[in-house]
Amino acid sequence: MSPRFEIVRSGPGGARLGRLTTAHGVVETPAFMPVATHGAVKGVAPRQLRELGATIVLANAYHLAQRPGVETVRALDGLHALMGWDGPILTDSGGFQVMSLGDLVRVDDAGVYYRSHVDGRAGVLSPEEAVRVQEALGADVAMVLDECLPAGMPRERVARAVARTTAWAARGVAARTRPATALFAIVQGGVDGELRAESAAALAALGFDGHAVGGLSVGEPPDETARVAAATAALLPAAKPRYLMGVGTPSDLLRFAAMGYDLFDCVLPTRNGRNGTLFTRQGKLMIRNATHARDPRPVEEGCACYACTHFSRGALRHLVLAREMLGAQLATLHNLHFYLHLMREIRAALSEGSFPERPAVAAGAWA
Amino acid sequence: MSPRFEIVRSGPGGARLGRLTTAHGVVETPAFMPVATHGAVKGVAPRQLRELGATIVLANAYHLAQRPGVETVRALDGLHALMGWDGPILTDSGGFQVMSLGDLVRVDDAGVYYRSHVDGRAGVLSPEEAVRVQEALGADVAMVLDECLPAGMPRERVARAVARTTAWAARGVAARTRPATALFAIVQGGVDGELRAESAAALAALGFDGHAVGGLSVGEPPDETARVAAATAALLPAAKPRYLMGVGTPSDLLRFAAMGYDLFDCVLPTRNGRNGTLFTRQGKLMIRNATHARDPRPVEEGCACYACTHFSRGALRHLVLAREMLGAQLATLHNLHFYLHLMREIRAALSEGSFPERPAVAAGAWA
Repeated sequence: MSPRFEIVRSGPGGARLGRLTTAHGVVETPAFMPVATHGAVKGVAPRQLRELGATIVLANAYHLAQRPGVETVRALDGLHALMGWDGPILTDSGGFQVMSLGDLVRVDDAGVYYRSHVDGRAGVLSPEEAVRVQEALGADVAMVLDECLPAGMPRERVARAVARTTAWAARGVAARTRPATALFAIVQGGVDGELRAESAAALAALGFDGHAVGGLSVGEPPDETARVAAATAALLPAAKPRYLMGVGTPSDLLRFAAMGYDLFDCVLPTRNGRNGTLFTRQGKLMIRNATHARDPRPVEEGCACYACTHFSRGALRHLVLAREMLGAQLATLHNLHFYLHLMREIRAALSEGSFPERPAVAAGAWA
Repeated sequence: MSPRFEIVRSGPGGARLGRLTTAHGVVETPAFMPVATHGAVKGVAPRQLRELGATIVLANAYHLAQRPGVETVRALDGLHALMGWDGPILTDSGGFQVMSLGDLVRVDDAGVYYRSHVDGRAGVLSPEEAVRVQEALGADVAMVLDECLPAGMPRERVARAVARTTAWAARGVAARTRPATALFAIVQGGVDGELRAESAAALAALGFDGHAVGGLSVGEPPDETARVAAATAALLPAAKPRYLMGVGTPSDLLRFAAMGYDLFDCVLPTRNGRNGTLFTRQGKLMIRNATHARDPRPVEEGCACYACTHFSRGALRHLVLAREMLGAQLATLHNLHFYLHLMREIRAALSEGSFPERPAVAAGAWA
């Protein structure tokens, strides 16, 4: 079965309540995807993800192709079996991660030449290979290989990356063999409105199942991010899902959902959790601070997550300072609950016509 | 309410099915206590311990007194609240851990002089202080301070430790103020039958709620352990619970339950889990071995644990090699399930009169 997307209800200013249906289940949108780069959300078992209300997770095809390897994943009955997660999975091609390898990488029109960060072996990630790997993994949604630049590059360099990204996208479409894996394109163009428009138009013409916006939150000022994200969303086919990659804070999720983005991913809730930084409606809470040592209150009053209903701030601080795995697990659980609850509030508000006021309360000091 | 112990049914050769009732619930014995040294079983949330069938856990008073500190635990409403675990807790005094600090420690009749492994501050752990701390934590069962020697010490040195342990035990009894915290003595005496008998008799006369056997599995040959454990068990009051400290492998649990021991603790299932060593009825399984890379079978066929019902050997190997927290969590879960399932089999066999045959099947290659 091929994934399909429908818009359930439109909200003010382009925001929409949607439904992405895949062979592994339905994703109500706007949705946040917890990050499971190597096939696991750090410290969180899949049954806990379900309990938290996650409906789709993000894995990284490059990392999984390095370890345990595509043939191993196939032998183990695919990525869903590997992860112990039977819900939808979106895989990133890993191009972004490969290009982050710095000296270990070279890019030309053929693709990305790299040395594996795991075993040092030379490899080539081409647009065709990116599709082949993600289909072999059994992803519900795959991403094309794109060229993602850091902020502040000269316009002609950005234009070249846009052209290359379009050419790679076309090759990615041509390489498809598995209808059950949806394929999303990635709009590039830095903070240049013209180039973004050119990229969006070229990709929209190629008939993808959905469109992502990449190359944002890579170092540019936040108001530039918002300007480009808003302009680009308006240029993407409204009937197809829009995915804003690698974004963001709770207030970002609210802001960009309001522009009509449907899918989000970010390492913030999980990484911050492991570092002892907790999201609350009152803002960030640094659990290591001495002020929490004897505080019997939960991280957030009224929060329904397992951490808040069973552990005090003082207890969580102790577990984090004692470097107990459970401390990182509980903090991650709370942060994911915060994010996924915010997304539920956003969807409920879109459904009942109270967007964006109602979720703004859930986002609290982040809004 | 003061904890109480009753023997439900006696099995062959001293083995018995028992019931330890505390203010925080009932412990069916023989029971295995997962180790939560700093207030958490590494990588396992309390609700998962419940699901696994754990009924009592072991924490360490010395470690908790160092961090987060007794006054902090009190301010956070006691050890049960700190741990998010509302079932019975047995605390070790931590004397064993303190004496393991080596150069940081000096022992005389007054107690143990040490420098904290956390902040280097000087401290004294006396028999009175050990009781005070454990009562302040709110332990359901506390252990007296004892002097535990390594294997192979001269007889007169062992005799002195026995005498000191008896004197400390008497001081511990005199220091009690909280009836809800049961107090267990600890028999010492190395592998010397006479000294063990002397220690057991002296302690039995002091009216403890239960008796532990310490100073075994500290480097002596396994058949010496078995000989001393058997002889000592027979000398301890039958009506009170017997706790064999720090033991052991699955076959140990079966062997010593058969001698009439009721309580056990060991870091093996949790530590081995974190290292990727899994317990199965066929023996140890080293999940890092390449042979498991593409094995779609669970760690143990027929095992009902979450890890075995949702993850293949190949998947678990991948998570462990990728150093994902979830790998350690799942392996620990399986190992604790193995141990706690074995204890259920032991109790069921004692209840139905099929001990030790039935649990020997559960222990498998370990028996």
